[in-house]
Amino acid sequence: MSHILKKEAFVIPEGVIYLDGNSLGPMPRGVAARVQSMLEDEWGGMLIRGWNGAGWMDQPSRVGDMVGRIIGAPVGSVVMGDTLSIKVFQALASAVKLNPERRVILSDTGNFPSDLYMAEGLVGLLEQGYELRTVAPEEVLSAIDDSIAAVMLTEVDYRTGRKHDMKPVTQAVQAAGCIMIWDLAHSAGAIEVDLWEANCEFAVGCTYKYLNGGPGAPAFIYVRPDLADHVQPALSGWLGHRAPFAFDLDYRPGAGIERMRVGTPPVIQLTALEVAMELWDGVDMQELRAESLKLQEQFIAEVERDIPQLTLASPRDTSLRGSQVSFRFAEGYAAMQALIDRGVIGDFRAPDIMRFGFTPMYLDAGDVSSAVAILADVMHNDLWDQDTYKTRSKVT
Amino acid sequence: MSHILKKEAFVIPEGVIYLDGNSLGPMPRGVAARVQSMLEDEWGGMLIRGWNGAGWMDQPSRVGDMVGRIIGAPVGSVVMGDTLSIKVFQALASAVKLNPERRVILSDTGNFPSDLYMAEGLVGLLEQGYELRTVAPEEVLSAIDDSIAAVMLTEVDYRTGRKHDMKPVTQAVQAAGCIMIWDLAHSAGAIEVDLWEANCEFAVGCTYKYLNGGPGAPAFIYVRPDLADHVQPALSGWLGHRAPFAFDLDYRPGAGIERMRVGTPPVIQLTALEVAMELWDGVDMQELRAESLKLQEQFIAEVERDIPQLTLASPRDTSLRGSQVSFRFAEGYAAMQALIDRGVIGDFRAPDIMRFGFTPMYLDAGDVSSAVAILADVMHNDLWDQDTYKTRSKVT
Repeated sequence: MSHILKKEAFVIPEGVIYLDGNSLGPMPRGVAARVQSMLEDEWGGMLIRGWNGAGWMDQPSRVGDMVGRIIGAPVGSVVMGDTLSIKVFQALASAVKLNPERRVILSDTGNFPSDLYMAEGLVGLLEQGYELRTVAPEEVLSAIDDSIAAVMLTEVDYRTGRKHDMKPVTQAVQAAGCIMIWDLAHSAGAIEVDLWEANCEFAVGCTYKYLNGGPGAPAFIYVRPDLADHVQPALSGWLGHRAPFAFDLDYRPGAGIERMRVGTPPVIQLTALEVAMELWDGVDMQELRAESLKLQEQFIAEVERDIPQLTLASPRDTSLRGSQVSFRFAEGYAAMQALIDRGVIGDFRAPDIMRFGFTPMYLDAGDVSSAVAILADVMHNDLWDQDTYKTRSKVT
Repeated sequence: MSHILKKEAFVIPEGVIYLDGNSLGPMPRGVAARVQSMLEDEWGGMLIRGWNGAGWMDQPSRVGDMVGRIIGAPVGSVVMGDTLSIKVFQALASAVKLNPERRVILSDTGNFPSDLYMAEGLVGLLEQGYELRTVAPEEVLSAIDDSIAAVMLTEVDYRTGRKHDMKPVTQAVQAAGCIMIWDLAHSAGAIEVDLWEANCEFAVGCTYKYLNGGPGAPAFIYVRPDLADHVQPALSGWLGHRAPFAFDLDYRPGAGIERMRVGTPPVIQLTALEVAMELWDGVDMQELRAESLKLQEQFIAEVERDIPQLTLASPRDTSLRGSQVSFRFAEGYAAMQALIDRGVIGDFRAPDIMRFGFTPMYLDAGDVSSAVAILADVMHNDLWDQDTYKTRSKVT
């Protein structure tokens, strides 16, 4: 058994096989007690003094370094806060200001929609002539030209798990004089990432998926250290100010990555996340990646052997795939509902994607086989073909 | 005894008199248990299904309505999320787009610096010609002219407690064709606010002060209902999209105030806040305001009687004052440290402001007298004149 597996460290309800850690990671066992003590001893007992006495003020950087370690970011180059959408906006706004002669933000249609929406919003604020251009994922390299200020891509596609090759794409982007922004939403804690080696200018990501920070856990932003003292924050909040408690009337950006802080940090969420990040201490990402691929390969093989109705939507080549496997099925929504009701939790993305995340920290080969057996039962017995599944509310 | 007083509903440590609820409100007793059950039963037990099954997805609007009730906002006109700095940015960005012929954002030097910083950041994104103009608080009315797109003011000054008169200021602003944005950071839960009557276009505020939502509790934004379907969100995140789970490539703003949502909501923080907001059920803001002023008047009278070294920095006229009382003292920083060490927690704002918040939900006349007696002891015996207090780290 791999020593990546730490099943006992997570709360997984009896009878559940959880293949949706790419949407919301399960709760690490240590979270509830630590949050309780943060509430009772820190907020309750220290009141306002918690900002210094309990280390709340430094928490965004402290936790940022914990995240940084598993994405190959140097100490002091990552800070936590806000949501991923906000961090996307910050990175984009800083990037276009670093490249003032150019007017195009390039992204791809495989990007998570919120990233595109935030870019649209930014373009709507900037002077006329700015533009968001989106091309198919496989056309990104050929679409790079000297009109492009910044390229923003999500490394791993949220629907199919298709993975961009970070290092060569970054090189091509930079060779054309563009700024590179990577969204690591489906990468951080899922695959090996080495930001230092990739040399991109910006990276952002969320922490409620593979990092198990809880619903609404704060996001992170990385700025390459040589740029961190030069980028101009567009969301220039007081906690990104050089001296927040001087209460100057004018903004002066804080040192390095600190300037990417905006408002008061969400201490309760950060406390949950900090506990979750402690589980990564000593985890070798290369080893975790190998375990993840082993589970994925087993899943694909067993599904293709047993359930011919499903068509693989993810790349078959493991080097082109993140940590999830997706299958297409026209009635995928109903099938996923039926599957969830039998304790195998994956999720669905329109129009026909059944999506399964593989997280070797709390999944093993036995779980994969059991999940396939239950899925086969749902499919072979047309259990999905019931009104209750076909009409269930589609909120998430 | 007033039935506003609910002292037993809050965790106040033994020996503490808490006059800093205007910075971070104390923890309501119900929070720890509810957060625990949200963690164990919802995140732990329901996993991803919590978004629908535990009502996480609707929480920003549900809690928004609870906040709305005490600031005179109609149901469906307030939504929670992000931080106050982000909400300021959203309101400002939407406001300038509503008034496209004009180029100036007007604010005052009594505004909280982060509001000014966020406006600076926005101006840096907009096409050339936009400007943030700040004048002294008493000069706002005379500075309004037809160059001004939007006026953004914090109703209650964070240092002195000086209060703008919301209704006539809004009328003057709107008569000149400008958009009005109120920051209610020191108003919500502290004084009577009637947004509907004031008729302002936007209002924003935080919830960790008088609303006791906890450190980093999410902020709120109000958009006047007749505008809510017309404002263009600049921070156009997926949860403000009309159909977030359709995963369209293009942004279509959600219905009404929902479009002011951005990213994934911080469910743990929102759960703490929701518990805190339940304490406001049935609270009459007029009565709370009267109690607050009674405590403030008692405090001023007793300090001025017993401690001549301190000079009132707040307006003496209660109609011009929020829910805090500030005194100037050259060595105010050291004096506040000495006071805090004796269990009376207020705070300090540079250069010389000792700031005391009055919150009749957990303070009574006996607390006020005890606080003044301890403050008098500190001042009369020069207890503040010690190196330990003069040199203590000034982080918050």
